[in-house]
Amino acid sequence: MVKNRDLLAIGHSAHDYIIRVPEFPKANFAAPITDMKTFNGGAAANVACVGAKLGLKTSLVSAVGGDFKKSEYYEHMQNLGIDTDSLIIVPGEKTPTAFVMTDDNDDQISYFYWGAACGFEDAKVPTSAIKNTEAIHLATGEPSYNWRCSEEAKNEDILVSFDPGQDLGMYDNKKLTDVLKNTTILFGNHHEIERILVALEVDLQGLRELGPKIIVKTCGAQGSEIYSNEDKIQIDAIKTEAVDPTGAGDSYRAGFLSRFLNGESIEESAKFASTVSSFIIEHQGCQTNMPSFDEAFERMNEFY
Amino acid sequence: MVKNRDLLAIGHSAHDYIIRVPEFPKANFAAPITDMKTFNGGAAANVACVGAKLGLKTSLVSAVGGDFKKSEYYEHMQNLGIDTDSLIIVPGEKTPTAFVMTDDNDDQISYFYWGAACGFEDAKVPTSAIKNTEAIHLATGEPSYNWRCSEEAKNEDILVSFDPGQDLGMYDNKKLTDVLKNTTILFGNHHEIERILVALEVDLQGLRELGPKIIVKTCGAQGSEIYSNEDKIQIDAIKTEAVDPTGAGDSYRAGFLSRFLNGESIEESAKFASTVSSFIIEHQGCQTNMPSFDEAFERMNEFY
Repeated sequence: MVKNRDLLAIGHSAHDYIIRVPEFPKANFAAPITDMKTFNGGAAANVACVGAKLGLKTSLVSAVGGDFKKSEYYEHMQNLGIDTDSLIIVPGEKTPTAFVMTDDNDDQISYFYWGAACGFEDAKVPTSAIKNTEAIHLATGEPSYNWRCSEEAKNEDILVSFDPGQDLGMYDNKKLTDVLKNTTILFGNHHEIERILVALEVDLQGLRELGPKIIVKTCGAQGSEIYSNEDKIQIDAIKTEAVDPTGAGDSYRAGFLSRFLNGESIEESAKFASTVSSFIIEHQGCQTNMPSFDEAFERMNEFY
Repeated sequence: MVKNRDLLAIGHSAHDYIIRVPEFPKANFAAPITDMKTFNGGAAANVACVGAKLGLKTSLVSAVGGDFKKSEYYEHMQNLGIDTDSLIIVPGEKTPTAFVMTDDNDDQISYFYWGAACGFEDAKVPTSAIKNTEAIHLATGEPSYNWRCSEEAKNEDILVSFDPGQDLGMYDNKKLTDVLKNTTILFGNHHEIERILVALEVDLQGLRELGPKIIVKTCGAQGSEIYSNEDKIQIDAIKTEAVDPTGAGDSYRAGFLSRFLNGESIEESAKFASTVSSFIIEHQGCQTNMPSFDEAFERMNEFY
């Protein structure tokens, strides 16, 4: 069967509110908001959008609110050519929303609204979308739904990329092991990979034996490390003027998969990934400064 | 000149986010949002919308964000037949937004985003909208803009209703006196009227001599009192199952003006006003349970 899509991202699309206040008020007081910006976010959507901008043919399965198709975010996805036919629309609910408030001391308080993400629980596995893609990427989202999708992908013998991210705590060991069994590439930051090793009482080699042939550990400004059948690969981060680290990890994943699915080596994929994330952190928002393939390729060759 | 409109409301249109969290997190912690609802709000828009539902031909001047005309709120205004031709659209800004967070102890923290309301400062007085209406209502908004509008209305010899509301602190005594000079009806809750009397060092009679022939003091569940050339009028509130008092005051003003502009007595206007607000407080949100004229009229006759 000819596949029309390179990568199907599964998990959250979200609205991000980035808010500045002079100080966090005590209970029963009010504060003025001195700056408020909204951004497109959600880990799965970040991967789908950055991937699309890099030239991947991506599709996306997220559980979103009833009015999502009227939103600018949806329009943005259409403009990027993302296949959104399998979106889970939940009437009467709102698209998941994150509010991140920062005060004049640069302290932060975050609020997360799960909202329409309740729709994952009873949603059908997007069988035709999975049949129609070369690979799936499981991002933050609903653990059981991610597992069901990984089973279908395994049946179809396609590559499964898995990044539980900040939702790691929602997976019990059984669920985590079940998804890992179907996983080809596991992504995590250094905290998350460490937490998985501790929870499952394995070392990196043992973790790879549970499923993922490739483990990609991202360490922010300290670069990334990749464990596979090859020797451990270590890639430096590109030094750049970092404005906002949010979305760096998702854009790394999109960059990595865009090259790896194109048949490039792990090392080349990781260098490209690191380059892509260097663009994202130069601007506020996860999808504000998405590079084209040519822009990323040029910077990669300058640096590495 | 034949006037096409009964009432022009001037001041804020706003989006209200009503959010529930288990507890307010400390700095650098996160909290899940267990419920989030958005409502149409802003004092001027509340008066225009409730007034329109009651059968008034209303128009509205608010400073709103660049994408306001794509919003459901705008659609709602169009469905109510409100004349929005004089809206101040501020590209690149967001419509003013209020976030009201309540925790499991029913403590609240509120955040207000002024946003597009910065557009009032340099905005032109809506001369043709003022010429085209029987009365204007100045709600929370920008004090200088409200004053400029009151001057134009005075020139046109039309009724000026004024409700500084929670923005009272933004008026210095000079600005307050300047607007009051042009005011026919002053609305305030008991705290606000008291604060005005103290600030201007006058009693109610002295306040009326500064401009407003009618002073309407609303006291929540304790009803309302109206001071004019007649004897003081006291109107009981209608006992009802109060769910959310937000918007009660604005709907009272819309109800009062809808009858008063129709030539009814102060007492009849106040009874109707009080009835209208009894509907609003039965549901969450300032514009969720707006009664039609017939519904309000029927309940009024049952109660008074």
